[in-house]
Parts: sequence; structure tokens; C-alpha cells
Amino acid sequence: MSSTADLIARRNRTIGPYSPLFYREPLHFVSARGVWFTEASGDRYLDGYNNVPHVGHANERVVRALADQAATLNVHTRYLNERVIDYSERLLATFAGDLDRVFFGNSGSEANELALRISRQLSGATGVLVSDYSYHGTTIALAEMTTGLETREPLGAHVRAIRIPDLDRDARPEPAVLADALAQVDAAIASLQEAGFGVAACLFDPLFSTEGMPRVPRGLLTGIADRVRAAGGFVIADEVQSGFGRTGSHMWGHEYAGLAPDLVTMGKPMGNGHPMSAVVTSEGVLDAFGSRNEFFNTFAGNPVSAAVGEAVLLEMEDRGLREQARVLGLQARARLEALAERHEFVRAAKGTGMFLGLDFAVDGAPAPELAVRVVEEMKSRRVLISRIGRDRNVLKVRPPLAFGAAELPILLDALEESLGVVRG
Amino acid sequence: MSSTADLIARRNRTIGPYSPLFYREPLHFVSARGVWFTEASGDRYLDGYNNVPHVGHANERVVRALADQAATLNVHTRYLNERVIDYSERLLATFAGDLDRVFFGNSGSEANELALRISRQLSGATGVLVSDYSYHGTTIALAEMTTGLETREPLGAHVRAIRIPDLDRDARPEPAVLADALAQVDAAIASLQEAGFGVAACLFDPLFSTEGMPRVPRGLLTGIADRVRAAGGFVIADEVQSGFGRTGSHMWGHEYAGLAPDLVTMGKPMGNGHPMSAVVTSEGVLDAFGSRNEFFNTFAGNPVSAAVGEAVLLEMEDRGLREQARVLGLQARARLEALAERHEFVRAAKGTGMFLGLDFAVDGAPAPELAVRVVEEMKSRRVLISRIGRDRNVLKVRPPLAFGAAELPILLDALEESLGVVRG
Repeated sequence: MSSTADLIARRNRTIGPYSPLFYREPLHFVSARGVWFTEASGDRYLDGYNNVPHVGHANERVVRALADQAATLNVHTRYLNERVIDYSERLLATFAGDLDRVFFGNSGSEANELALRISRQLSGATGVLVSDYSYHGTTIALAEMTTGLETREPLGAHVRAIRIPDLDRDARPEPAVLADALAQVDAAIASLQEAGFGVAACLFDPLFSTEGMPRVPRGLLTGIADRVRAAGGFVIADEVQSGFGRTGSHMWGHEYAGLAPDLVTMGKPMGNGHPMSAVVTSEGVLDAFGSRNEFFNTFAGNPVSAAVGEAVLLEMEDRGLREQARVLGLQARARLEALAERHEFVRAAKGTGMFLGLDFAVDGAPAPELAVRVVEEMKSRRVLISRIGRDRNVLKVRPPLAFGAAELPILLDALEESLGVVRG
Repeated sequence: MSSTADLIARRNRTIGPYSPLFYREPLHFVSARGVWFTEASGDRYLDGYNNVPHVGHANERVVRALADQAATLNVHTRYLNERVIDYSERLLATFAGDLDRVFFGNSGSEANELALRISRQLSGATGVLVSDYSYHGTTIALAEMTTGLETREPLGAHVRAIRIPDLDRDARPEPAVLADALAQVDAAIASLQEAGFGVAACLFDPLFSTEGMPRVPRGLLTGIADRVRAAGGFVIADEVQSGFGRTGSHMWGHEYAGLAPDLVTMGKPMGNGHPMSAVVTSEGVLDAFGSRNEFFNTFAGNPVSAAVGEAVLLEMEDRGLREQARVLGLQARARLEALAERHEFVRAAKGTGMFLGLDFAVDGAPAPELAVRVVEEMKSRRVLISRIGRDRNVLKVRPPLAFGAAELPILLDALEESLGVVRG
């Protein structure tokens, strides 16, 4: 096994020095099981961060489904195969209303690209609304809509970024905050129409994860959706982070947010790390796009991906993981709220289910330096978390959905200790 | 198990009726091993078509690597992991010159998107040259460059499509054909510059697979590359089809074509069906892009994909599959040329290595109806092939690279019989 320094040098000479690494001293993992990583040193780390290994790292049922199907058949959808249909039916059964058709892909970027492409074609417009601190993927079209990380592409002329309010940071009454946000939306739509772009879509994560899980006014998302639809656009819910029971209370983030989208995109946890994604939509949308385009994706919908996706859904169901996330999420949230009470520099507890955070501020100003210190303190206690938000001042506690009652106190005790250390 | 009619009905209600299916009566496969499929009926079919299962369907080494790594660790590249570095080094060792850095992705579309995005940023231009019957992926930016299948998007104003000549169809002397093609390129570049788009890149499959494997004049690709570079653009070789030894004579299609590209994209066979792709480029290009963009792809470069990719390379090497493809390809090509001699409606034998074809024409006009009849005749003999080209009149024989000496006569005998049947 290479030393860390040697490994970093080899990494720089292959995938390059810009490929991001977590932590001042990067971690070198050699294995993982359930919610625990093992480092090259032999040390174990509790995973309070990774949402991709949804039903747990190296989940046996998922690995078995992957291996069995890969040893049997792995081919595209141009031949009939029952596996992808079985999985499609199981996945679609988790959706309400007219969301009863699915396009498969291989990444969240591919899913968001396709949802955007469909919206552009069917609306005949190009204008899009996003939030002003968001990220939806790596492609050219998505880079032109990226507001939440550094890209060389300027924001597209056809893109309008909406500031998402957070009632935890805004002292005004909720109706005033809502009216202000919706006025921004009205102005953005008018501006897109005046510029001749029209409105193709709004694209939001219903949890606003990248933004730092703001507590939004009731009616914000439905208000945006109503306005976008009235302007001829489509409502896309990016559920790469909020889907598959992450909120605890609901299978899908749009249900949590009380929203009925036209298209739902999903990715990260869908295959527990196997590269797969999807766009779920209505029959009408699928027909309108499908009948006008020869659309085919080589890897997407192959029976191995379908078997893996099915194993994830079955594992969630059999182990009651969404309900577990709901119950443990409420317990964790209560303890985070107590920490917020106790520490002046914690402005608010954030989140729901297995996506939780703490907003750090000093004298009303975001305190990212405290957040980074807590993340490093947690690491020294061998618990992995991160931070999010425009100001990078919100802790990001987003473990595998399978995070259990045995592990939760370990994480929360470490957090309590870390908060005590960074600002006694 | 469902009946075929029932399965198609369920398919229509989930992934929809537009998801393409091969053959008038679609095939329903339940397993595959090596170069053989097994249908639901129990019938076995010889796979003369699929390039994704490169080292053979359900290859044991690949399946073992997949299962072992998935049971050990599957996580993104933000933690150090040796697996992805080992694989990167092995992959990059197959490239010459300054092609010594790699970005990973999950599909050919993602790879071509990234190569295009890099070229646009580094050139400061948006104009692109493609061939006038090509396909590079499903995204919005790639749909605007698609000339080889039906998309609703019109060709972008910044896109120029070059007609690729075929010496098998053009009676003029080779130098005249070359001069004519390069004059088209000069005109396209001048037009992009006049319109203010400039030249970001040319993007070609070095084999021109979708075009039907035209026999191009010597100097065409280098001539295009020189002109594009002189105009400030980048040369992208799309090796999704031509890479990984497909040509038999070379590991990479650009080597086969005598071309030194700035960026090489790859996908389909890379993971033997596991969704993965890459862009290989130089240190200078990686640095220029990496230093200006926060670029990260969640699934890409995970240790499971790396283990699978490594198993594919090792299997190719240990079994000498490229050399086997070269030798068998020459044998097959000789027999195809004999068939072309014998049958007036076969204009030419096409291709190299394990990518071969026959160009059908009657009285100088493309004869797609003969090609489709041969494909169906082959199916009735339980051999899978397809057809390609602008006129869909070129047979597409593109089996797993692992196609062996035992199977080649089965395919060629069936082809000989089928040609006899369609036009005695």
C-alpha cells in the first residue's frame, strides 16, 4: 500500500490536483460497511455525510443483486428484458398523480439535462428559473445555470436566479417574506419574456440542500410553480438529494414541500453508488418528447442497474428505513435544537429526517470559520460531516439513510463535544 | 415469466412506446455468456452486434472485480482511494504523447459534454465542426450537433457539418476527393469566424462509425485537425466506438487514423456494460480547466468502476483480444471482399478489426431494403447484426471484441446464406 504522500503525488499525475479532496489532511479509506468506513491506518470512521450509500455501504442485498445480474445478463433496452420493467413499475408505484412514466440515465447531470431538454422542447422557450445558490450538474447547459459553485461559464442570459428566503434569518413576518420572494419570481418571469426567452422551466431542489436548507415560507414552492406554469413553463423537482425517503416524512422531497412537479429527477442514492438516475414524468410529457426524438441512452435501464435499483427499494421497505429516518430525525432535530438554545453562535437547527444541520452565526453574521472548525473537530473524533450554504456556515449532517439508533448518539455526542471545543 | 405481448404492454406503460426496440419481432433475452445470448424461448443467438460487452457477456473476471469491490468500498473521489489511481495509470499507459491525464464520467454523453465544455472554455469560442451524419450524445449541447438521428433541436447556428467522403463511392482520384473535403472545412471555419462564433473544436469518431465506415482519403483527419488548430480550436476524438482495440490494429481509433488529438473521449466498452466513461487529455488542458472550475462528478472514478475498468484492460491483455481482433478481422474482411466480388449488389466491404460491414447498392443507389432483409435473415439464423450509414444500407457487424475463431465462421456462413436468399 502506498503512503498518503505517494498516493497524492500519483493522484496529481493522473486525475490531477484539482479533483477535490475533503479535509486538510485527506482521508484514505480502504473499506466500508453499513455506516462505518475503515481507513488505511485501520481507524474506523462513522459516516455522517454520505447520501449515496443509501441503504448502507457494501449492503449485502445490493451487492448480491449487482453480482447475480451482472453474471446473468447486462444489455441495453433495445431487446426486451423484464428486469427493467419490474423495476420501473416498483419505482413508479412510489409516485402519486400522473407521474407514471420514467426515462433512465446514468447520473444526476444526465437526468437534469433531459428534464431541461424536454421542458425546452415542449415549451418552445429557453428561459429557466433556479435558486441563487444551487447546483444541478456538470454539463454545459447546467453549468450556465450554476450559482452554487465556481464555474467559468457566466450565468446564461436566459437564466434568472431567485434568492430563496430563510425564515430563520429573516425577522419579517412570513407573509411579507413570501410576497417579497414571489415578487422576485414575477419580475424574473417578466424579464425572461421581455428578453424573448420565454419560460421553459423552473428547476429547484425541494429541500434547497445546497442553499443550506432554508426554512422557506409556506406557499413559496407552489407559488413559484403556479407562476411558471402560467408562463408556459414546466416545474422540475431535482430530487437527487431530497428523494428516496431522505426527509423521513415522505418518499419524495416534492411531497414534503407540498409540490406537484411536472418532472422529477433523481440520482445519487438510487443505486447505492451504482451509477444510475432517472426522470419521472407523465404519459403526456413522455409521448410529446418521445414521438419527436430518437432518444436512446446506451447504459441506461440495463438489467444490472435495474436489479440494483430494485434491491435498494426492497431494502428500504423491508427495513423500514424511511420511517426509521423520520423517527431518528425527530430525535436528532430535538437535540440539535437544544444545542442551538445552549450555544449563542448557533442561529438555528436545520433540516428534516436524515438531512440535518446547524446554522452558525456570530453577531448576526454567518460564521463559516466555526463550521470548518467543527467539521475538523468531528473528524478528529472520527465522525464525518461537512458544511453547506452560500456562506458555508451550515453544518451538513447527511448520513446514509440506514443510519441507525445505535450510531445516532455517537454522532450527536461528538457534535456536542465539538461545539464545546470551538467556542467554550 | 411474462409473454412477449404482455411484456411489451407493460413496457409501454412504464418506459413508453418510443424507447427503441430492435427487429420487427423484438427479442427477449434472459441471459448471455461470452458471445451468446439465450432467449426466453431457450434459443441461443450469436452476438455479432454488441460492442459494449467488450470482453464477453458476463465475463467472469469482470463480474468478480465488480462484486468484490462493491462488497469492499464504493465511494466518490473526495477521499483518497488507490483503486482509481491504479486504474488511471493503467489506462493512461495505453496512450502516447502528452495524453497523460484523465477525467472520469458515467457515459459517452458525459465524456463528450466535458470535452466540448473544456474546448469552449479554453478556446473562448463556441463553433464546432462535426460530420454530417454523426451522433455524440443525448444532452442539449450534443443534440444541437446531432446530424445522424432525429432530434427536435435544429442544428446549432454555431455548428458546421462536414460531408465525409467515401472512396468506395466516389470515382474521382483520391487527391481530388481530399482537396474537396478540405475546402469544405476551410469554408466551414471561415463561416464560423465570420459569424463571430470562432472555432472551439472539431468532434469526430476516427472510424466514422455512424456514417458507415467510409474509406476516407489519406490525410483527411490530419488535414482537418491542422485547420481547426490553426483557427484556435481543439481536436476531440470520440472513441466511444473506435477505442479499446476495436480496430484490431491499434488500441485507439485516433492511432488507426494517424491523428494526434487534444482530447479523447471513451465510453461503451470501457466497463463491459458498467456505466463509465472518460476524457483523456494533456496536463496543460487539465490544469487550464481544473484551475478555473470546481469540477466534480459524484459517481465518476469510484473504486467499483475503476476495478471493472481495470478487469477489462487485464482481460484484453491476458487473452490478447486486440491481436485476435486484428487477425480474425483480416480473415473476415477477406471473406467479405469475396462476397462483394460475388454479389453485384454489394458495393464494397467495409471496416477493420471487429467492426466490419458491407455496403449495399443497386445501380449505384444505396439499397437499404436489402440491408434490412439481410439483418432479418441473419436473425432467422440466430445471428445478431445491424446496419448503419446515412442511407442505412451498410451492414454493421460489430461483435464483442472477444468474438473468437470458433464463432467467426458461424457468422460468415450465415451471412453468405443470407446474401444468397435476399438476391439470388
